[in-house]
Amino acid sequence: MKKRMIALAVSMGFVATLTAADDSALREKAKSAGLLPIPAGVPEVTGNPVTREKIDLGLMLFMDPRLSASGVISCNTCHNLGMGGDDNLPTSVGHGWQTGPRNSPTVLNAVFNAAQFWDGRAEDLKEQAKGPVQAGVEMANKPENVVVTLKSMPEYVERFTKAFPNEPDPVTFDNMAKAIEAFEVTLVTPGSPFDDWIEGNDAAMTDEQKQGLDLYIEKGCSACHSGVNFGGQDYFPFGLITKPGADILPPGDKGRFEVTKTVSDEYVFRAGPLRNIALTAPYFHSGAVWDLGAAVALMGTAQLGTKISDEEAAQIVAFLHALTGEQPKIEYPILPVETDDTPRPDLSALPVAN
Amino acid sequence: MKKRMIALAVSMGFVATLTAADDSALREKAKSAGLLPIPAGVPEVTGNPVTREKIDLGLMLFMDPRLSASGVISCNTCHNLGMGGDDNLPTSVGHGWQTGPRNSPTVLNAVFNAAQFWDGRAEDLKEQAKGPVQAGVEMANKPENVVVTLKSMPEYVERFTKAFPNEPDPVTFDNMAKAIEAFEVTLVTPGSPFDDWIEGNDAAMTDEQKQGLDLYIEKGCSACHSGVNFGGQDYFPFGLITKPGADILPPGDKGRFEVTKTVSDEYVFRAGPLRNIALTAPYFHSGAVWDLGAAVALMGTAQLGTKISDEEAAQIVAFLHALTGEQPKIEYPILPVETDDTPRPDLSALPVAN
Repeated sequence: MKKRMIALAVSMGFVATLTAADDSALREKAKSAGLLPIPAGVPEVTGNPVTREKIDLGLMLFMDPRLSASGVISCNTCHNLGMGGDDNLPTSVGHGWQTGPRNSPTVLNAVFNAAQFWDGRAEDLKEQAKGPVQAGVEMANKPENVVVTLKSMPEYVERFTKAFPNEPDPVTFDNMAKAIEAFEVTLVTPGSPFDDWIEGNDAAMTDEQKQGLDLYIEKGCSACHSGVNFGGQDYFPFGLITKPGADILPPGDKGRFEVTKTVSDEYVFRAGPLRNIALTAPYFHSGAVWDLGAAVALMGTAQLGTKISDEEAAQIVAFLHALTGEQPKIEYPILPVETDDTPRPDLSALPVAN
Repeated sequence: MKKRMIALAVSMGFVATLTAADDSALREKAKSAGLLPIPAGVPEVTGNPVTREKIDLGLMLFMDPRLSASGVISCNTCHNLGMGGDDNLPTSVGHGWQTGPRNSPTVLNAVFNAAQFWDGRAEDLKEQAKGPVQAGVEMANKPENVVVTLKSMPEYVERFTKAFPNEPDPVTFDNMAKAIEAFEVTLVTPGSPFDDWIEGNDAAMTDEQKQGLDLYIEKGCSACHSGVNFGGQDYFPFGLITKPGADILPPGDKGRFEVTKTVSDEYVFRAGPLRNIALTAPYFHSGAVWDLGAAVALMGTAQLGTKISDEEAAQIVAFLHALTGEQPKIEYPILPVETDDTPRPDLSALPVAN
C-alpha cells in the first residue's frame, strides 16, 4: 500500500511528503533490489595485503608522471581525484596528444567492480594498473623502462623495499601495480545521501530523490546497476532493445567481444558503476552524452524499451545525485628526486592528428 | 685568518672539520655577499591582500585543468608541486603536444623574484599567471572562455564572491590571476639546511657544503645569484665571457631583447633562482643541461671566465643541495563540478610535430 502511494505520487507528478513508514518500505525495496551501502573499512583484495607502506607508495606512483614515457602523464591525468576520479573528457588525451578509444572510467570505488575496464579485461586493479602505463595512446611506456626509472631514484627503492619486505628484488612492474592497487583500494566515497538514508536517516535524501529511487527500481535500472557500486558487476549488450546511433555506439568498438571473441559478446559492455555519476560527465564508453538526464532517457529506450519522461528522468537524476559521496582527502605527494640514472623523457613520438 | 684556513682546506682538497669560529666567519661572509634566509610569514604582494579565501580558491585554480582550452593542462602540469615546482622536462609540453620555447621555471619561492619569466616580462605573479593560460603552445585558452567556464560552476562563483567581496562582478580573469598569486605566495620552502645554518645552527650543513658555500662566494657565483632566492633579481648576458654552444644557447631565442628591444639585451636572461635547484633539472632557459655539476662548470667558463674543477663543482653542488627546503604540503583540492553551461573541452587544435 505504501509503495503504491509512492508510485501514485510519482505518477501524478506532485511532491508528496513521505512518512517514516514510506521510507521504511522504500528502504526494504531498495535492499531487495540489491542496492547496497559502501561497507565500512578498507576493502580487501586478492593476493595483495594492503599496508600503510603500500598505500603511501601507491599514492606517489599514482601521481608520478614519470611512469609515462614522456614524463608528462600520470594515472591522475585521466583519473583526476579532484574531478570525480576521471578527466571529464569524452575520451582521454594521451602520449602525443592522441585520444583513446573509450571514456575514462572513475577510479573511485573501482575496487567494488567485479572486473576493470569497460570490457572487464582486467580481473582486478593491479592488473588494470599495468594497462595504461603500456598503452601506446596513453602513457606509452615499457615495463623495463618503468623499472629502470623507479630504481634510479633512491627514495623509491627504499619505499618499495619497505612496502614489499623479504623480497629479494622489490622494485618490479608487478609490485608497482600492487602498490597502486593498495592506494586505489582507499579511494572509496562513503557518506553519500543514499548511504546515510539506507542506513536509517530518513532526512538524508529529499522526497524527489526518494521518488527517483523508486522509479530507478520500478523502471528496471537496478536490474543491471545494483550492488555496492550501482553497476560494475556484469556485462550487457548496449542497445539490447534499440541500438543507439553510431555517435554513441561507434560500430568499430565491439566491446567485450574483443576479450572473449564470442559473437554474442559483440557490443557488450560492463554496466557502468553509477556512484558519483554526477561528477563524471560525459557518459557511456564513447563519452558522447554530456547530460545525465539524456543518458537516463537513452537507457530507457536502448536497454529497457520504455519511454522515460523528462519529469521521471529529472527525478532519477535527483536520485543519482544522492550517490555522490565524500571525496578522498589526499595530501599531494612530494615525489622522489631524479638522478643521473633516470631515463630522460621521451617526447619523440610523432603526435597523431585528431 | 679563519677564512684563509677554509680556502686553504678547500684548495688542498682535504676535508677539514670546521670550528664554530669558522662557521661564524663564513656566516658573516655569506651575509655580506647578500645570501639571505627565507623570511618568516607569508610574503606580501602589491595590490592583492592575501586572504585564506583567495589562497584556497587559488589552489583550486592552480590544479584545475579546465583553465586550459583542452581541459587537460593545469598550472600544476608544468609547475608540479610534487617535483620541485616544475616539470623536469627540457621545455614543457602544452596544447596539442607542442613543446614550449623555454624551460619551465619553478613556482616555489617565485614570489621572491624581482620579476617573472626568464626574460622578466611579467612584473609579478598575478601578471605571470595570465600568460600560460593564453599561450597557444601552453593552455591555449581565451580569457573570455575562462570566465564563462568559471561562471558556469556555482561553487566557483561562490568562492570568487567570498574571495573578492564587495566587487559587483567578482569572477574575472584578473581575479583568477590574483587568486593564483595569493596561493603561489604560500609556496615558499623554508627550513633548508642553508636557512638553518645561516640562522645559527652550525650542524645544519656538512663541511663539504660549507666549503661549497665558500667557493660559491669566492668564485663569484653570488655576484648574480644572491638575495633570498639566490638569483631571480637581475638580468645578465648568457655567455658574458664565452658563449655556450647553440644547443644550450639557441640563437633564435634572444631573451630579454624581446621585451626591451634594446640591442644590449640580446641573449640577456634573468639569473636563475637557485633554491631547490637540486629538484629542478634540467637547467638553463633551454633545459639543455641535466647534470648540476656540468651546469656549475659551464657557468664558470661562460659567465665567470674561470675553470671550476670537478672537485670544486662537486663542493658547490653539495652546497646547492643545502638550498632544498621543506616542500609545500597541499591537500589535493576537490574541484567544482561542471554544469551544462560549462564550455566543452576543445582538443581540436592540430598537434604539431616536434
